[in-house]
Amino acid sequence: MFSLTVLYEHPTDPAAFDRYYNEVHTPLVQKIKGLKGLSVIRFKPGPHGEKPPYYLMAVLHADSAEAFNAAMSSPEGRAASADVANFAANKVIMIPGDEMYIDL
Amino acid sequence: MFSLTVLYEHPTDPAAFDRYYNEVHTPLVQKIKGLKGLSVIRFKPGPHGEKPPYYLMAVLHADSAEAFNAAMSSPEGRAASADVANFAANKVIMIPGDEMYIDL
Repeated sequence: MFSLTVLYEHPTDPAAFDRYYNEVHTPLVQKIKGLKGLSVIRFKPGPHGEKPPYYLMAVLHADSAEAFNAAMSSPEGRAASADVANFAANKVIMIPGDEMYIDL
Repeated sequence: MFSLTVLYEHPTDPAAFDRYYNEVHTPLVQKIKGLKGLSVIRFKPGPHGEKPPYYLMAVLHADSAEAFNAAMSSPEGRAASADVANFAANKVIMIPGDEMYIDL
């Protein structure tokens, strides 16, 4: 599977970030056709209370890089991509990858 | 779902890392009882050839923090945790989190 890992740095206003992410951004991602799924991980403090190095991670899953690129080139894909600037500005890292899932 | 995200920095010898990760470490993780699954993402260069900020990401999935802690406290969990020092030394970041999966 192809994946795009999106790491969000800590926002200045976490409550505003959460609201926008949940109520505006996620629905835009859900409109994109041709993706398989979206994993959203909200990071928590470590066992000794350490602040996590990132605030939130989203992983977009697709059957292949070609399927992903086609999905993100659609009007819905472009709208979701453009929306990142509305709430995360320069505080986001995006990394493509090849994903394997092992059931345990 | 509870998740533990493990980010591996670029190894000095990627081929040796891959061999150890695939042939030794992953089988040790697969022996742990009480986890739900393991996602392994091998990062790739970005669209303009950018080197990814990390080499590989593993996400361990469990039903709850309690289930995760119990699994990692077992002999198999402790063996897999201890094994990280054999191939990644100080070059690893582990972040607990709450995970949600949205089917698209």
